Amino acid sequence: MANDELIDEIRGLIAEREELGIRGLTDHLGPSDWADIVPRLDDDEVAVLLASLPDSEIPEILEELDPANAAAILRLQPREDAADLLEAIDPDDATDIIAELPSEDREQILRAMEPEEAAEIRELSAYPPDTAGGRMTPAFVAISPDVRADDAVVLLRRVAEEAETILYVYVIDAAERLLGVLSLHNLVLTRPDTPVEDVMVSDPIRVKASADQETAARLLVDMNLLALPVVDEDDRLLGIITQDDVADVIEEETTEDFERIGGSQPLDMPYRFASAGLLVRRRIGWLLFLFLAGLLTSQVLEHYADRLQGAPALIPYIPLIIGIGGNVGSQTVTTLVRAIGVGEVRLSDVWWVLAKEMAVGLSVGFIMGLVGYLRVGFPEGFQIGIVVGATIMLVALWSATVAAVLPLVLERLGVDPAVVSAPLITTLVDATGLLIYMTIAGLVLLQM
Amino acid sequence: MANDELIDEIRGLIAEREELGIRGLTDHLGPSDWADIVPRLDDDEVAVLLASLPDSEIPEILEELDPANAAAILRLQPREDAADLLEAIDPDDATDIIAELPSEDREQILRAMEPEEAAEIRELSAYPPDTAGGRMTPAFVAISPDVRADDAVVLLRRVAEEAETILYVYVIDAAERLLGVLSLHNLVLTRPDTPVEDVMVSDPIRVKASADQETAARLLVDMNLLALPVVDEDDRLLGIITQDDVADVIEEETTEDFERIGGSQPLDMPYRFASAGLLVRRRIGWLLFLFLAGLLTSQVLEHYADRLQGAPALIPYIPLIIGIGGNVGSQTVTTLVRAIGVGEVRLSDVWWVLAKEMAVGLSVGFIMGLVGYLRVGFPEGFQIGIVVGATIMLVALWSATVAAVLPLVLERLGVDPAVVSAPLITTLVDATGLLIYMTIAGLVLLQM
Repeated sequence: MANDELIDEIRGLIAEREELGIRGLTDHLGPSDWADIVPRLDDDEVAVLLASLPDSEIPEILEELDPANAAAILRLQPREDAADLLEAIDPDDATDIIAELPSEDREQILRAMEPEEAAEIRELSAYPPDTAGGRMTPAFVAISPDVRADDAVVLLRRVAEEAETILYVYVIDAAERLLGVLSLHNLVLTRPDTPVEDVMVSDPIRVKASADQETAARLLVDMNLLALPVVDEDDRLLGIITQDDVADVIEEETTEDFERIGGSQPLDMPYRFASAGLLVRRRIGWLLFLFLAGLLTSQVLEHYADRLQGAPALIPYIPLIIGIGGNVGSQTVTTLVRAIGVGEVRLSDVWWVLAKEMAVGLSVGFIMGLVGYLRVGFPEGFQIGIVVGATIMLVALWSATVAAVLPLVLERLGVDPAVVSAPLITTLVDATGLLIYMTIAGLVLLQM
Repeated sequence: MANDELIDEIRGLIAEREELGIRGLTDHLGPSDWADIVPRLDDDEVAVLLASLPDSEIPEILEELDPANAAAILRLQPREDAADLLEAIDPDDATDIIAELPSEDREQILRAMEPEEAAEIRELSAYPPDTAGGRMTPAFVAISPDVRADDAVVLLRRVAEEAETILYVYVIDAAERLLGVLSLHNLVLTRPDTPVEDVMVSDPIRVKASADQETAARLLVDMNLLALPVVDEDDRLLGIITQDDVADVIEEETTEDFERIGGSQPLDMPYRFASAGLLVRRRIGWLLFLFLAGLLTSQVLEHYADRLQGAPALIPYIPLIIGIGGNVGSQTVTTLVRAIGVGEVRLSDVWWVLAKEMAVGLSVGFIMGLVGYLRVGFPEGFQIGIVVGATIMLVALWSATVAAVLPLVLERLGVDPAVVSAPLITTLVDATGLLIYMTIAGLVLLQM
């Protein structure tokens, strides 16, 4: 992309924002706009762009980029510059970026960094990236319980640049165990000579480093916190997870749920950067499994070959009937998997969910069955109409039932219910739907 | 539910949290836990629960409940008490709750409230709930540009209880136009006698009241803001949208996308509270449309009835082939709709998206086609094997192409791409998949 086109692209983004009623961006794009633009540039253009930006903005842009992309930019820099950039980035983001570098580059850059900051990154690297420990930043402010409120404010002034958030100050004992928390808000509104232990909130909500990142993110949201302390097994304060991580975590996990419900394995990376080869690897497993499961439908139809030869008018409605099963199942399972995902439906709700979904399946089945009876009955005769109509009703009921029960059963077995994809439900009810069709056809048409 | 069971349920929730590595909740459940528990109680139990809680906690619980549920609780209270509760609730939440009351109750409660707070609610009611204006709260802090930093801190102390967030202070001119913003952080770290206009960030990012709530929420996240000012057409500051709204907005919009991708119209309310009748109404429209579209498959099969009678071995593979088209289409469309939803893929990306998805479709089609050729060829003879294998490959390619193009075409036409559900793609490729099958069968088997 030429430089001019890049500028046009940036102007376009600003115009798009202004159309949406957003103002005040004319002079500065946000970090996430850069995250959007940078991956479209080649190496030379990135070099031009970085040279044209104030040095102070580059770390913030790297923080917003996908870590793999930020790592690619770092590799273009001399080792010393890369080390300086990493020092200016929040340690949690720096850890994610450095993990994307080949191990020799990683070691060289870490050795070029200030020993203290390099040590922070090495420590954070010990936690898996999808845990609270992997998400946390060690850039928090902690004080002992006997510090006075005004001294705490002085301290804050000193560390304000380094700490990721000074909205909360944590109070810890000599062994670094978490005792309490103070909001900046409280601190400012307190009499200067009060010791912080008199105004802190004791025994604050915390999460272990080994906890799942989604658990931590939902807790921040549910409790209306701006930051959540992360502790080790001995309750020592290790770091904090902040609000800006929440949106990332929830977006990541929701994207995974979307990919699963569509019948893929999660990509674990932005779609934009996923190669066709990766997409194939993430999709082919389920496709082959569903293909083999789909062979069951062939066996059902082969088993009933004579009946179909005897009543060939039944054949054209095969795709229609299995399509209805798939559509009802897909509606039910996406709604339910989401309701389970946001915590609205639990295992103990299985009975009312089942009753509700069966009532819905029966109702939509009745309506579509009636339409099917009339639509098929007039040209083909009402015996075929009855077979198709009754099958549609039962298939809708059956599909809704399977789609309502399966996610909750998996949840009970400790399997993420999001693996019950729409294609899986569709495939599962295809063969049984055909069995229903052939059985009803046998019952009705034998009387011909 | 008896009182004992309620207590057991609450204990269960605490235990669940502790298992997840979360501590410090033993003494207090969060507002969202109450939001989870309260809807399961009947009116008497709610009365017992409210009586047992400190008065100061009740408004916070009402804020976290679904507005319909909070309104139901308000209706149980004497009018004066309901008015007091609403006064203690953030005006944006109070507006949502009061909107759920019948209009006579609404007027009576508003008249029982302090005139100033009632006026705020009446004003907020003017904006549709899914706009920035409908989400904002008027509880912000604004000062004129010549106020000194230390006086601003004194002011903050006075209003701290009423304002929803004092993390930012807004600077406005005499006509209430937005001039700048200061973080509490800045204010505390500034020399006391500095006028705020010298330290404020000028021309801050803002959003019009008429902007979509999702736009506003994404802007807060993308720009790493804790609050976003909302202005009218003349740039007068009306309110702010805060971080705690973001999670709600994004969760709401994501749930809608989930429901759409599964082939339903959005419920616009929590699944738990949706009656079976509402679920039927939200689902039957698409089901009937897809049913009618599905009749096309019957017409294709009727058209080729002779060919099928001549080669009945083709019949059992009909569901398998359309199933593969549906599965590939569903994988592609869910991944893409999500990528469009989070802003990763735009209209201008149509060509590389298409190229990537066609490559993926061809690859997975080739693998499944080969498996199909062998699996069908051995028992049925390799002419049928070739027909099935080649059809599978082409159907996968075709389905991936349709699923990649359609969401982007709709985006261009200004239609939300999330209406392209997995069931819609499946139904669209069913009939064309059968056409491909019958055409290839004609070409190969005519040479028998």
